[in-house]
Amino acid sequence: MPNNLHVCLSPALIPLYAVEEYNVVIIDIFRATSSICYGIDNGAVAIIPVSEVEECAAYREKGLDYLLAAERNGEVVSGFDFGNSPFSYTKEKVAGKTVVLTTTNGTHALHLSRSAKKIVIGSFFNLTALSNWLGQQNQNILLVCAGWKNNFNLEDTVFAGAVIERLKCNDFILDDSAIAANDLYQIAKNDLSGYLAKTSHSERLKKLGIEKDIAFCLNIDITTAIPVLQGEKLVKLK
Amino acid sequence: MPNNLHVCLSPALIPLYAVEEYNVVIIDIFRATSSICYGIDNGAVAIIPVSEVEECAAYREKGLDYLLAAERNGEVVSGFDFGNSPFSYTKEKVAGKTVVLTTTNGTHALHLSRSAKKIVIGSFFNLTALSNWLGQQNQNILLVCAGWKNNFNLEDTVFAGAVIERLKCNDFILDDSAIAANDLYQIAKNDLSGYLAKTSHSERLKKLGIEKDIAFCLNIDITTAIPVLQGEKLVKLK
Repeated sequence: MPNNLHVCLSPALIPLYAVEEYNVVIIDIFRATSSICYGIDNGAVAIIPVSEVEECAAYREKGLDYLLAAERNGEVVSGFDFGNSPFSYTKEKVAGKTVVLTTTNGTHALHLSRSAKKIVIGSFFNLTALSNWLGQQNQNILLVCAGWKNNFNLEDTVFAGAVIERLKCNDFILDDSAIAANDLYQIAKNDLSGYLAKTSHSERLKKLGIEKDIAFCLNIDITTAIPVLQGEKLVKLK
Repeated sequence: MPNNLHVCLSPALIPLYAVEEYNVVIIDIFRATSSICYGIDNGAVAIIPVSEVEECAAYREKGLDYLLAAERNGEVVSGFDFGNSPFSYTKEKVAGKTVVLTTTNGTHALHLSRSAKKIVIGSFFNLTALSNWLGQQNQNILLVCAGWKNNFNLEDTVFAGAVIERLKCNDFILDDSAIAANDLYQIAKNDLSGYLAKTSHSERLKKLGIEKDIAFCLNIDITTAIPVLQGEKLVKLK
């Protein structure tokens, strides 16, 4: 019996899936899951995703091994170590540290998926490593697009399509959203940044002055680590 | 200031939109909105969409001018006049009559959109007439895919993309789901039935033995009537 390969196009649709029957991949390309993949690959001991700046600030009291990442409107919040740019997650900055990352959309998607068999983190950075691992597990797969405030977005969907492309040789049953995601990836794949430049989210991020982050998040296979949720922390899958 | 042209990919996402700011189009290609367009074009006085077979049955007491349509698993429910096949909505059968139609997905989408400026019904049957009317209204447009039990489906999304294609010469602002719907339509448009044959819903409908209905629902521009919601009834837009 082939396994299912399904795509959930918004966190608001997660309740439609029996998540306990899936390995779940959380996808938030611009920029949370890209930064998480980069940070874990660069030696961060763990990354703790939280929804609110206040939750993040509460970690300050726990000691100096925590780096706190919080942003509002593209600026690092006063008193925090850095924002959500993947460029903050270099070896020099995060190796050996635990990072507390404020990410509303990503945390929401993680929370709704918490009964999954396993929850892992995907981005273009770890596309091939992630797809290979998924293909070896003999489990149903649910690719969850974190979106933007529960709205569908193209960048997360196109990434889901890229994963599906790499899993096609396996014998999965696709749902309609998986077919759509893969078809959109076929259109986008030869010029990812050109294709995604027309999206609403990309426009919004441009206004925040973070075009460099966006361009960087579209780099494919620059990492191999697969972040996996253990309790409240994302750590490197062994 | 250009108007918005947005696509809501599932009734579960309708609450994300301020529907009172839009003309809403309800789309349920296989088969509810196709049958509604065909019936209204063929002279039905009105079509009343209801969720449950029991609600439909309650109209029996109101007199002989009501035709009752109810189906379970592809079969006309015993005691009802016909099912949901568009072939039941011919001139001979529906002219001068009011039809009570059981449609779970469509009724759900209608109910959640009830505060819209106007609610109209779309299908491939009235594609050009509908698109022309939408383009003349100078309003925001929300294309609502009724889906299947709140799940995304390809046939409704591809139809939304076909409407967008016809409105492109106007100066609308598209959201990401509108961009995606139009891109999927570009892939599908030269072989709609071939493209949609791979969808989950199409598989499900095939098992019900209604391939003829599916093929018929993909006919473009065979009607010109635009059904519009007035109170609880869908009637012909004047």
